[in-house]
Amino acid sequence: MEPLITLTTDFGARDPYVAAMKGVLLARCPSARVLDLTHEIAPQDVVEGALFLAAAVPYFPEGTIHLAVIDPGVGGARRGIVARVAGQVVVCPDNGLLGALALTHPLAEVHEIAAPRFMRDEVSATFHGRDVFAPAAARIATGVALADAGPSVADPVLLDLPAPERMRDGTVVARVIHLDRFGNAITNLAAGAIPAGARVVVRGEPVPLARTYGDVAAGAPLAVVGSAGLLEVAVNQGSAAHRFGLARGDEVRVAPASAG
Amino acid sequence: MEPLITLTTDFGARDPYVAAMKGVLLARCPSARVLDLTHEIAPQDVVEGALFLAAAVPYFPEGTIHLAVIDPGVGGARRGIVARVAGQVVVCPDNGLLGALALTHPLAEVHEIAAPRFMRDEVSATFHGRDVFAPAAARIATGVALADAGPSVADPVLLDLPAPERMRDGTVVARVIHLDRFGNAITNLAAGAIPAGARVVVRGEPVPLARTYGDVAAGAPLAVVGSAGLLEVAVNQGSAAHRFGLARGDEVRVAPASAG
Amino acid sequence: MEPLITLTTDFGARDPYVAAMKGVLLARCPSARVLDLTHEIAPQDVVEGALFLAAAVPYFPEGTIHLAVIDPGVGGARRGIVARVAGQVVVCPDNGLLGALALTHPLAEVHEIAAPRFMRDEVSATFHGRDVFAPAAARIATGVALADAGPSVADPVLLDLPAPERMRDGTVVARVIHLDRFGNAITNLAAGAIPAGARVVVRGEPVPLARTYGDVAAGAPLAVVGSAGLLEVAVNQGSAAHRFGLARGDEVRVAPASAG
Repeated sequence: MEPLITLTTDFGARDPYVAAMKGVLLARCPSARVLDLTHEIAPQDVVEGALFLAAAVPYFPEGTIHLAVIDPGVGGARRGIVARVAGQVVVCPDNGLLGALALTHPLAEVHEIAAPRFMRDEVSATFHGRDVFAPAAARIATGVALADAGPSVADPVLLDLPAPERMRDGTVVARVIHLDRFGNAITNLAAGAIPAGARVVVRGEPVPLARTYGDVAAGAPLAVVGSAGLLEVAVNQGSAAHRFGLARGDEVRVAPASAG
Repeated sequence: MEPLITLTTDFGARDPYVAAMKGVLLARCPSARVLDLTHEIAPQDVVEGALFLAAAVPYFPEGTIHLAVIDPGVGGARRGIVARVAGQVVVCPDNGLLGALALTHPLAEVHEIAAPRFMRDEVSATFHGRDVFAPAAARIATGVALADAGPSVADPVLLDLPAPERMRDGTVVARVIHLDRFGNAITNLAAGAIPAGARVVVRGEPVPLARTYGDVAAGAPLAVVGSAGLLEVAVNQGSAAHRFGLARGDEVRVAPASAG
Repeated sequence: MEPLITLTTDFGARDPYVAAMKGVLLARCPSARVLDLTHEIAPQDVVEGALFLAAAVPYFPEGTIHLAVIDPGVGGARRGIVARVAGQVVVCPDNGLLGALALTHPLAEVHEIAAPRFMRDEVSATFHGRDVFAPAAARIATGVALADAGPSVADPVLLDLPAPERMRDGTVVARVIHLDRFGNAITNLAAGAIPAGARVVVRGEPVPLARTYGDVAAGAPLAVVGSAGLLEVAVNQGSAAHRFGLARGDEVRVAPASAG
């Protein structure tokens, strides 16, 4: 099977940055199958990129190589790394992009990208996606060991994702960590941590905890366990982001059945 | 030849939903070639998705598998289906997505997706793209018969697309069914139904019926038979949508040569 | 190795135009690997398309076929061409799309697309991407010689890109030729033409010439030699387009060290 290399960036579709990376990948590993995941991560938003990888990588087959470049620190001191995780490989800047995935899948092996043959001959100060990360991914796709990239990294940068807070009365204060295209507000509260009979309150308004969108009338709000296993606030055939004016970081309260 | 699976959704490029579907496809059919058609169908707009499939599917080679997920009824009672049409296979919710394509290409075989081995082990209530449709497409890509998916469906859901109306004086009232990126307004009037010498009127303004955009001056409006064989209203190097303030459902009048 | 065909258009992701082209490519060359470069070139903006190709094509391996359709003159008198450049092939309308690439990579061979077997049987007046350029690219992908497409073209249309102007006092007046997604303003001034010790002035404001974004404080402006080897104006973790209100064509002044 030809090696599979996916691409996750904040480069957008309009500029030639992604195209240049694809050219470098295919020039250095002509048999690679190159697959876009997204190029629409908000510019320089490492947290959004980390959540994206955590939601996408686990579905891919063993041996997939994921090239992820959201890189506000390009040209500075941050390292480039190759990491083995979930039976796959991620190639990215060492800035927390692996932080969400690492919560559920241990990083089995992490190396710094230091070897010149993992880079282009000339490395610009502004575009390591093309000059470092794509060549490194292509090199690994040709079968070279991760350890050949450079020294082992014992302390990869992780993320400080907010954890839900538990109040004295048992109420859990969850936080919106992402708003998707449909206006669903995904929180940091895992399904398993939702108390039985819980009552969900968004901006002071009680919202029924349902099994799926269609369990409430069109236009009505609901809380639901979404596809990633996290509590989300939604509106059936509408947008919870608009309905409640929600932004990332806003709180969603989950009160236990017994609480006043 | 490796199986070819295309993707048509309203999931957008930014969220990880499409990436998860690609992972499921490749984990279950590692040899598949996965090709994006679009992920920018307006959210939950089944009519736009149906028109898209009708305009795209017929160009693909025999045996192509098209995975189409615009699914406002996810988690409710609507069925999932696999259908053979135009020598190819479409995997989608049974909500009218095949309605426009079926106008020109008969549905040769339709089955409900009911067999557990056409789904993931756990099926969420909110994301059948990942849990039902992608596994079903991958299963078919590995060579399994459509009939293995489940019982035959005799009454797939079709669409009530508006038909052009014909007035007493022979005038045909067409309707805008889609506005494209260039601001061209595509109507429901097929080229064959345009009377010879017809005069096209948009919002009371006569518009010349031309062979191509460049037949009128830059900035001038025209009517033209577009690439799908349908009458469209355009502005050479401009936007008919902006020029006339057109929206889907607006009428375009086509008067025969003889009418006053 | 299966032939590699890339796509660069202004068709956007939402309409079925790109999908139809992909279908035509794969129906006529089933073994082709089809790869999106971009579909987000500004509608009918040949200059943006030309800059994109110049920035992307050189990274691809020998033999790659690039299908590029930004085609405001579709249906008019402009030719369709196939060109050999940088060891690769570009298939496009003859309207200047090759003009920027040709500045650095000579066009080795250019032919008009005239032979019927390089087109679909029916050629519409509005969509040559599907009816001419995709069939021509597929034909070349199957191994047919470029010369079979039609007569040799001695005078392909090139571009009048603005060149930087040099003033009496040695100041160079560069022009913004592109604004990217991050708000970086890319100019027409090549790195090699920047005088030693140069002082960059944007809208009357001196801007430090730095090696990379992180060399200045977050939010501070800088000038930098970007990934394409051209001078660009940027803001570290911000947008130079917003900071200075820059648009394409605006000037950026580069004064030599000795000038007052």
